[in-house]
Amino acid sequence: MQGAVLYGPRDVRFEERAAPRIIAPTDAVIKISATCVCGSDLWPYRGINPTTEPTPMGHEYCGIVEEVGRAVTSIKPGQFVIGSFFASDNTCPHCHAGYQTSCQHKEFVGGAQAPSLRVPLADGTLVVTPEIPSADLIPSLLALSDVMGTGWFAAEAANVKAGATVAVVGDGAVGLLGVLSAKQMGAARIIAMSRHPSRQKLAREFGATDIVTERGDEGVTRIKDLTRGVGADAVLECVGTQESMMQAIHSTRPGGSVGYVGVPHGVELDGEQLFYAHVRLHGGPAPVRRFLPNLIDLVINGKINPGKVFELTLPLEQVAEGYRAMDERRAIKTLLRP
Amino acid sequence: MQGAVLYGPRDVRFEERAAPRIIAPTDAVIKISATCVCGSDLWPYRGINPTTEPTPMGHEYCGIVEEVGRAVTSIKPGQFVIGSFFASDNTCPHCHAGYQTSCQHKEFVGGAQAPSLRVPLADGTLVVTPEIPSADLIPSLLALSDVMGTGWFAAEAANVKAGATVAVVGDGAVGLLGVLSAKQMGAARIIAMSRHPSRQKLAREFGATDIVTERGDEGVTRIKDLTRGVGADAVLECVGTQESMMQAIHSTRPGGSVGYVGVPHGVELDGEQLFYAHVRLHGGPAPVRRFLPNLIDLVINGKINPGKVFELTLPLEQVAEGYRAMDERRAIKTLLRP
Repeated sequence: MQGAVLYGPRDVRFEERAAPRIIAPTDAVIKISATCVCGSDLWPYRGINPTTEPTPMGHEYCGIVEEVGRAVTSIKPGQFVIGSFFASDNTCPHCHAGYQTSCQHKEFVGGAQAPSLRVPLADGTLVVTPEIPSADLIPSLLALSDVMGTGWFAAEAANVKAGATVAVVGDGAVGLLGVLSAKQMGAARIIAMSRHPSRQKLAREFGATDIVTERGDEGVTRIKDLTRGVGADAVLECVGTQESMMQAIHSTRPGGSVGYVGVPHGVELDGEQLFYAHVRLHGGPAPVRRFLPNLIDLVINGKINPGKVFELTLPLEQVAEGYRAMDERRAIKTLLRP
Repeated sequence: MQGAVLYGPRDVRFEERAAPRIIAPTDAVIKISATCVCGSDLWPYRGINPTTEPTPMGHEYCGIVEEVGRAVTSIKPGQFVIGSFFASDNTCPHCHAGYQTSCQHKEFVGGAQAPSLRVPLADGTLVVTPEIPSADLIPSLLALSDVMGTGWFAAEAANVKAGATVAVVGDGAVGLLGVLSAKQMGAARIIAMSRHPSRQKLAREFGATDIVTERGDEGVTRIKDLTRGVGADAVLECVGTQESMMQAIHSTRPGGSVGYVGVPHGVELDGEQLFYAHVRLHGGPAPVRRFLPNLIDLVINGKINPGKVFELTLPLEQVAEGYRAMDERRAIKTLLRP
């Protein structure tokens, strides 16, 4: 089969790779219905994370189960499934606590930008939809594999409650779906920080009530102005830079919470500054598995449509253009069809 | 009057100072029944925080109201009152949210190691006891002014729930009262980290079920061993150094919480490391004012006896010896009687 392989900065190739097969008895192999490019794929694509060897790319997926290992009991060939970027057994104490991305047996799922994919720990990792979904639902179901679950975790980690004032730092797909999540959780006011007209538009569609175009200290000042000097109850940090993290912390009221899901790159927090900011800080790799059953329901019942973040849809063989479009901010997110 | 003044490292003098008087109409002046030396007083005493000018010391107090400003309505001369180290109006949005130590009009209360003290924002800051307490209750009521409220906040910030496994880093007065707080909140297991026999004893008396004497990475390994490799649900960080903070973070299970109340000194947190630790982090200057009514009830009804942390009681004029005893770890905490 042919799949996406990253060789180095801005060098994604669509080339022959060994087709995945069952290795461990707990594995499944699925036929990919749709996959996509993640904002986090841009870190190595841009050379900010080094690529030391040719790396099969992609960790967001949904599709039809083709084959399962002999120890797999709940997942069957022919089912439509969605899983997270970390495989998890869903039985260890960390999974039971709802932190499947810290599963004691977690395994990264890579190489999903391809026609088929091996998923370890299939029983724990994959969630089956009630029936084979219609084609129009595929983008939104695919979004649950990472980006929607990550936006949801940002909102949950930021302790968004009904009636809350929420700010969202970052207008990438995760930030926009953070807006959608905060809306679902009943936030009364959602301030999206974005200077990009098409993203502002989608933010408003997802539930943003205010748009702030300023960044850094000026962005903080605007949030304070909009909240009578108090700050937001909950701030979602969906970027992962020093600037975005400090912007999030300083936009939060004392006793409020920052949910951070942008993988931190070079972020250093000064303990004393954090202490006096009086904020609650929670984040990490989103335990998407925990949210999948609920989010699948919301998609199937038409309550949410996270697939709208896919501004561009390409055939899988044009994966390199998919990366370019996101790198150049021509598309929020690219969906790829094998 | 004579009070304690810090001139520089290990140079506390008991000397003549101007008696406090009403300055703002919202002030009260109280006659101190008892005051004490705080663990945080040791930072400047040891020269870790520089002392740039002679500084009146002490920020923990309880006593009888002598005089109030003309704008004070709820506090009356003759009442026995307790307040926090930060004066707060108790009416601003931050106070309403329960973060009185971030009050929009907060003011540090200093110079309490003296026979009398000016307390700003008296109506918001001071809490009156139902009646004038008997002498035996004074140490426990004094403890509520900072150290008990701070231990309580550490436990609350660490999200201690009934049945939880809790670890406490730091065996100073705050850490020990963090043990007591966790016990009150229904923790099933409380692991106190201490290598000091008399403090271990008091930790057990306050509710600790296990003692860990190791520190740093070895301490983390012991906590992991004691929790089947999972980590604690809640960890109270009551020191404020890089080592203690990392020990707290790494002792916490993914999805668990660190409550940190030790004023951070030179603490730097690596964003990526924190991200993958998956912990919730909350702390800051304890909003003691929020907890005072409940804690006063618990003391008066004999449910808690936080005054036990005062291993040494001295007349106020021996304040310098009070500092020395704590600096040399001969006493957990020193109570001073004017």
